[in-house]
Amino acid sequence: MFIDGIHSRTIWTEPEAPGLVHIIDQRFLPHKVVIEKLETAEDAAKAIQEMHVRGAPLIGATAAYGMYLAALESVQSGGAVAVLQSAAERLRSTRPTAVDLHHATTGSMEAIMKSGSSEEWVKAALDYAERWCETSVTECRRIGEHGLSLLESVFRKTQKPVQVLTHCNAGWLACIDYGTATAPIYLAHQEGVPVHVWVDETRPRNQGSRLTAFELGQQGVPHTIITDNAGGHLMQHGMVDLVITGTDRTTRNGDVANKIGTYLKALAAHDNEVPFYVALPSSSIDWTIADGISEIPIEQRGEEEVKFVGGLNPEGRQSEVLVCPLDSPAANYGFDVTPARLITGLVTERGICAASAEGLGSLFPEQRREK
Amino acid sequence: MFIDGIHSRTIWTEPEAPGLVHIIDQRFLPHKVVIEKLETAEDAAKAIQEMHVRGAPLIGATAAYGMYLAALESVQSGGAVAVLQSAAERLRSTRPTAVDLHHATTGSMEAIMKSGSSEEWVKAALDYAERWCETSVTECRRIGEHGLSLLESVFRKTQKPVQVLTHCNAGWLACIDYGTATAPIYLAHQEGVPVHVWVDETRPRNQGSRLTAFELGQQGVPHTIITDNAGGHLMQHGMVDLVITGTDRTTRNGDVANKIGTYLKALAAHDNEVPFYVALPSSSIDWTIADGISEIPIEQRGEEEVKFVGGLNPEGRQSEVLVCPLDSPAANYGFDVTPARLITGLVTERGICAASAEGLGSLFPEQRREK
Repeated sequence: MFIDGIHSRTIWTEPEAPGLVHIIDQRFLPHKVVIEKLETAEDAAKAIQEMHVRGAPLIGATAAYGMYLAALESVQSGGAVAVLQSAAERLRSTRPTAVDLHHATTGSMEAIMKSGSSEEWVKAALDYAERWCETSVTECRRIGEHGLSLLESVFRKTQKPVQVLTHCNAGWLACIDYGTATAPIYLAHQEGVPVHVWVDETRPRNQGSRLTAFELGQQGVPHTIITDNAGGHLMQHGMVDLVITGTDRTTRNGDVANKIGTYLKALAAHDNEVPFYVALPSSSIDWTIADGISEIPIEQRGEEEVKFVGGLNPEGRQSEVLVCPLDSPAANYGFDVTPARLITGLVTERGICAASAEGLGSLFPEQRREK
Repeated sequence: MFIDGIHSRTIWTEPEAPGLVHIIDQRFLPHKVVIEKLETAEDAAKAIQEMHVRGAPLIGATAAYGMYLAALESVQSGGAVAVLQSAAERLRSTRPTAVDLHHATTGSMEAIMKSGSSEEWVKAALDYAERWCETSVTECRRIGEHGLSLLESVFRKTQKPVQVLTHCNAGWLACIDYGTATAPIYLAHQEGVPVHVWVDETRPRNQGSRLTAFELGQQGVPHTIITDNAGGHLMQHGMVDLVITGTDRTTRNGDVANKIGTYLKALAAHDNEVPFYVALPSSSIDWTIADGISEIPIEQRGEEEVKFVGGLNPEGRQSEVLVCPLDSPAANYGFDVTPARLITGLVTERGICAASAEGLGSLFPEQRREK
């Protein structure tokens, strides 16, 4: 997508700078576009853990590129597999909820081990990371095409701008390009289907007001930021046609772990008969688990993210303010689980299906399990 | 309740300073306790509108004291009833959702008019304001006594600290003393019933993390601040025994308009079979309306409250930061309506009843209407 009119992806290498991986350090958005260069697997792990990058597909990509950097380090140290293994473990440990980290590091490890001698490792790891990115872009584009039909169908009925509510950032900044939840919105906007997006600010890290609002604005999509508290009221008053969010991990039964607060929006959508869709590349599906609430580990992050809010101060500098008594404790759960029963449909790269084992099984028959 | 160990109310006059009304300018809490002196009815209106004071009972009290200041102004200008009337209108116009403003200004006006010659007006208005405050304190204390039974009953069963979740600030800072939703908590704490409070931060103005956390901390009540997004997750995992909130306006059928986001917590409580109580003095009941969603006007406030977050900057000064792109629009709905069907019970000064016309009618038979 575009930043200041220039097409960009969220992670890339440059031929003239081998051994370096470029990312947008998203902690400075929307106020400043900072490009960071990762030189080591540990740089990649830190970028994931400290949320320079976030979003399931992008942290998967960063982990895959992290394995590329680990392969370079391993070769430099004489081809030790232990270096690769410890990098994979370190990268996996950075964010416990996202399944993409497992997929990316395990997949990269397999590709590296298959490639033969350690001279081949670097190329195998780089190829794997690049394939990860291309796959993500293709999948997001397809999610967009399938999801577009939902927005078109609303517009055909109402002949008014389609009112979409989204939570957190499942936009191109969470992916490589297009985004997941935003892909249908961008395609609708490109196709001339009028759309307006209610953007949940998404406390505590404000990925909605910082990132989703930024990227929608950069593509010229009409949008309005709201507090996380407001969506229920909008739905009660018929001001939302549909909700689309992303997911960090989806169970084979269609439960979805996504940014904390998603469950509350799903409840409100259900209570007001507003369709609630979750957009996801199938890489975010964890086929090994069924029940999201009991089986998905929920990351707890530092209390300072709740107690301090970052932004641009009156002098135009990035700063933060304490919003509560300094001695009051705070808890910071990163995700919640939305049970499949509250989800109207899952929008995947292969089409839209019911949030159920049957629904997912119909689109991904190769993953069906014997009972 | 106590601030730094000293007993305080939220609004008061001092015998040695007639014609002045003292309030705590709550915009500076929790970082600084600022006492403001109101000299005119317009000062009182501004204090309400710009939220130096907030909370249904307290803005009612401030409006009542505003009428006292108007009576002083009226007498000084020769006893013009028009001065009183225009002050009443101005005070009523400050916050459209709260019914207490109507009660307080209308009640004060009646008391003044009944008092006879304009020499009596000032005393009548002051008496009315003082009675308003005493009534509020008595009602809050009774709400606390009735609500205490709910917490005691949980503790008898679990023998663990009672986990209460609350939204916004329906604490003593929203009232004159004790608070509404917090009164049962303070009484439990005093009686030795262990209690821990999950405090929703309550965006956009953070009344939870700024005010509720502050007042709980000052009384020594264990508490943890959470984002507004987190409550559903806690309830899914059995970490909340009951929810208690306040209300700004309650219909005769038991629908409740409270701080935006209350509805989402009620949905989550309902979905997880967590009891959801609303604490209210009967002055917040609007007996003239039945359906909250269609009949209660919802205040829309300025977008800057969403786009900028205030707090203490690293230099220890009150400041604010921009948390989104400057050119992204934001919407700011102040309240939402929680339908009676999601409410386990209403905790009033006369006892606990079902959130229904029958329930309220049983406690307030004098308000029952012919069908």
